[in-house]
Amino acid sequence: MTDIRMIEAARDRLAGRVRRTPLLSSPFLDEIAGRRVFVKPECLQHTGSFKFRGAWSAISALSPEVRAKGVLAFSSGNHAQGIALAAKLHGLTSVIVMPSDAPQIKIANTRAFGAEVVLYDRASEDRDAIGAELSQARGLTLVRPFDDPQVIAGQGTAGLEIAEQAEEQDIQAAEVLIPTGGGGFASGIALALEAKSPRLRVRPCEPAGFDDVARSLASGKIERNASQSGSLCDAIVTPQPGNLTFPILSRLCGPGIAVTDDEALQAVVLAFNRLKIVVEPGGAVALAAALFHGETLGDTVIAVASGGNIDPDVFKLAMDRYG
Amino acid sequence: MTDIRMIEAARDRLAGRVRRTPLLSSPFLDEIAGRRVFVKPECLQHTGSFKFRGAWSAISALSPEVRAKGVLAFSSGNHAQGIALAAKLHGLTSVIVMPSDAPQIKIANTRAFGAEVVLYDRASEDRDAIGAELSQARGLTLVRPFDDPQVIAGQGTAGLEIAEQAEEQDIQAAEVLIPTGGGGFASGIALALEAKSPRLRVRPCEPAGFDDVARSLASGKIERNASQSGSLCDAIVTPQPGNLTFPILSRLCGPGIAVTDDEALQAVVLAFNRLKIVVEPGGAVALAAALFHGETLGDTVIAVASGGNIDPDVFKLAMDRYG
Repeated sequence: MTDIRMIEAARDRLAGRVRRTPLLSSPFLDEIAGRRVFVKPECLQHTGSFKFRGAWSAISALSPEVRAKGVLAFSSGNHAQGIALAAKLHGLTSVIVMPSDAPQIKIANTRAFGAEVVLYDRASEDRDAIGAELSQARGLTLVRPFDDPQVIAGQGTAGLEIAEQAEEQDIQAAEVLIPTGGGGFASGIALALEAKSPRLRVRPCEPAGFDDVARSLASGKIERNASQSGSLCDAIVTPQPGNLTFPILSRLCGPGIAVTDDEALQAVVLAFNRLKIVVEPGGAVALAAALFHGETLGDTVIAVASGGNIDPDVFKLAMDRYG
Repeated sequence: MTDIRMIEAARDRLAGRVRRTPLLSSPFLDEIAGRRVFVKPECLQHTGSFKFRGAWSAISALSPEVRAKGVLAFSSGNHAQGIALAAKLHGLTSVIVMPSDAPQIKIANTRAFGAEVVLYDRASEDRDAIGAELSQARGLTLVRPFDDPQVIAGQGTAGLEIAEQAEEQDIQAAEVLIPTGGGGFASGIALALEAKSPRLRVRPCEPAGFDDVARSLASGKIERNASQSGSLCDAIVTPQPGNLTFPILSRLCGPGIAVTDDEALQAVVLAFNRLKIVVEPGGAVALAAALFHGETLGDTVIAVASGGNIDPDVFKLAMDRYG
């Protein structure tokens, strides 16, 4: 299981490879929120999301013999790009299995970061079977998007940075709002903060209607989402919390917060105007929670903007509606 | 005159106040440029531009008695916002003299950062006379936008960061491309690099048709622009290089590079898509030079993105044309 030593070891392996993203703020956002709001823009991380941290951590933790055969991932999104670039920088093959109806731009970007993309037909083919066959035939190691101890450790390196940056900015206590899908990012950060800055407490943030983590935390057992489609926050829509991540979230996090797509779009526009960063809707749910769901929040929050790979049409929609 | 000791002293006064902006990159930009391109996003600085550095430096260098009476600036743009916030954080009055036809959003933002805005009619009133009267009546100290040794020293603190970051990234030699108006930013950075990393050389970048610095460097004497309007890169259009900045630029910088408005807009879109940062056209001319004017550049460039306060309609134009 992931612990602080694994997170610190991941940090050491990531040294010189990961960007230390800054801590941003704006008096305009503080005024809207009615509290101090700091934003950690992981959209500025390599490949445009925090996923590069976990990808590098997992790949660099493999034994040299296993690693040399290459890695495999299922993803049409940020995890795919993180794995592709981390593998390329290791000089490895990566194979990303993607649905053939994934947006062309995502397929093109994943290829451009160096991956071999294998497309499958969602209607007629079984993704897991394709992956198992590839893995067996070529010796590729599957890197899961969140339920992997070394992935969680890599995401936790952002938590080490948050603890340091809070100290630099003299932040004594705060709620740390994290966009949450399967819970790898939130659980890694929660473990790092437990060890380094226990007065910083993680609050998972999700799209309304896809708040499996919030409901699981409330009921004490893993709950599923009724649907997996229909949210603009696609980057963080997953069926349910992970088997590894849920116990960590359950032990360390405060209650979840759900925000609407419209609130996420407003946060996208405010991040653009006031922080000069590009955030995708799923990456903006924590900022949206800070701005529009302060009822249960204290006087200082740190909202992580987890990714910036926004579809241009979605960005245009946000600007037309709230710009 | 500004020297490295003044820049280091400015850095000490700015410690804990300024953001250390990261160094970003993208394999997609490297491919377009045909060389390694690093981008330092000063659009992420407080108030959305590097101007906060010089403003803080100048205000914090005043004697306590002089400072307590407040400061004055003429500006409708990034310098105004930098002065307003730096004064507010010092607990001081700032008065910004702005033309009454300046965009409402700029007036509102300058007020929101804590300044008292005095509007004047460009057609019938004399800005300098209004400033002189305010200065005399209330004891306000004028802070010039670039031709001030402490402003140049403050801007130079970005150069100290570039020197450190180049070493961290193992960049041995590079051209450092700087969006240039009056030359305060370029000259401050050039002085810092001369002392700390002489294999990094500044190249000033300007809008085509408003390339007074490039022409002045070529002729060896101060040249003026024929016009001061008609560029989307308004943030860096000035009549001519400063009396303090030109000798520094002349001694330390390579030839200037001019880019078209369309190239600047393309750079705005590429910065949005590939770096997840928001850059205004004037702030994007250095990146545009790196991407589209490589003829005279070496294998590694560092382009500074100097500001992000883009008008939403201009951003929309850029996305419609190149998104």
